[in-house]
Amino acid sequence: LQMADEALFQFLHSEIIQYVNSAETGESENGRCVSKLENMGFRVGQGLIERFTKDTPRFKDELDVMKFICKDFWTSVFKKQIDNLRTNHQGIYVLQDNKFRLLTQLSAGKQYMEHAPKFLAFTCGLVRGALSNLGVKSIVTAEVSVMPACKFQVMIQKM
Amino acid sequence: LQMADEALFQFLHSEIIQYVNSAETGESENGRCVSKLENMGFRVGQGLIERFTKDTPRFKDELDVMKFICKDFWTSVFKKQIDNLRTNHQGIYVLQDNKFRLLTQLSAGKQYMEHAPKFLAFTCGLVRGALSNLGVKSIVTAEVSVMPACKFQVMIQKM
Repeated sequence: LQMADEALFQFLHSEIIQYVNSAETGESENGRCVSKLENMGFRVGQGLIERFTKDTPRFKDELDVMKFICKDFWTSVFKKQIDNLRTNHQGIYVLQDNKFRLLTQLSAGKQYMEHAPKFLAFTCGLVRGALSNLGVKSIVTAEVSVMPACKFQVMIQKM
Repeated sequence: LQMADEALFQFLHSEIIQYVNSAETGESENGRCVSKLENMGFRVGQGLIERFTKDTPRFKDELDVMKFICKDFWTSVFKKQIDNLRTNHQGIYVLQDNKFRLLTQLSAGKQYMEHAPKFLAFTCGLVRGALSNLGVKSIVTAEVSVMPACKFQVMIQKM
């Protein structure tokens, strides 16, 4: 049954990408597509974290919040934890997923790398939305090194 | 964790509706929106059923297929079974869900009824796609009686 949920999410996610990609036409279509997907992710992230943290005690600091995202939040959405979390202790966190679920559908060839940003935008928004609802304002970007491994970089915005 | 998956699906589903709704502008925008959503559902239904039935023995007849949709398929997507299945034994099946998950987000007032088709289109496509991959060609429509109860009508297309 868990496999079913995962499949449902993956299929829906790729339908969204295809649709947004085809609906956004115009000069800067690629940028708009990515930003629409990021915004969707943001709202979904906000909604999810509200449900997940209803019974969770408050976090003691920013690192504690990031650990929650890497373990509990990631597991509930992607069925695995983040493989590696690093920080410079000055507001930058790098979350590495060695087998990112939403990239495993994309073939591994170099010719597909140009599509990778579209496959990461929703998740960047998801993390930004989740953090935002936990009181942490951030900018989240992503990069693929060797598919399906990728890194999400979270830059905390101090208020 | 199951609640998390359900929430993820619900949030994604409502993001898709909102986005498709805003992207489809023009003369017959409402009809196009519903048909886009139905098509997305169709492809997702095809994909899901392929995974679900990999290890399932072949079905003995059309009714057997419908029962699988009402029990196993519905449970994996909506976390409950169809409450009632009826047929006229001439190719029409009515699947009733007394508490349809994707309608529970909509408020129950009469003024929201006009939005109901948009909230049912994806699922109509989902059923049509699943059946199609099991070799059953159909037309699937839906109607809301009292929210969040609804009925999906499947008309088998004989080939």
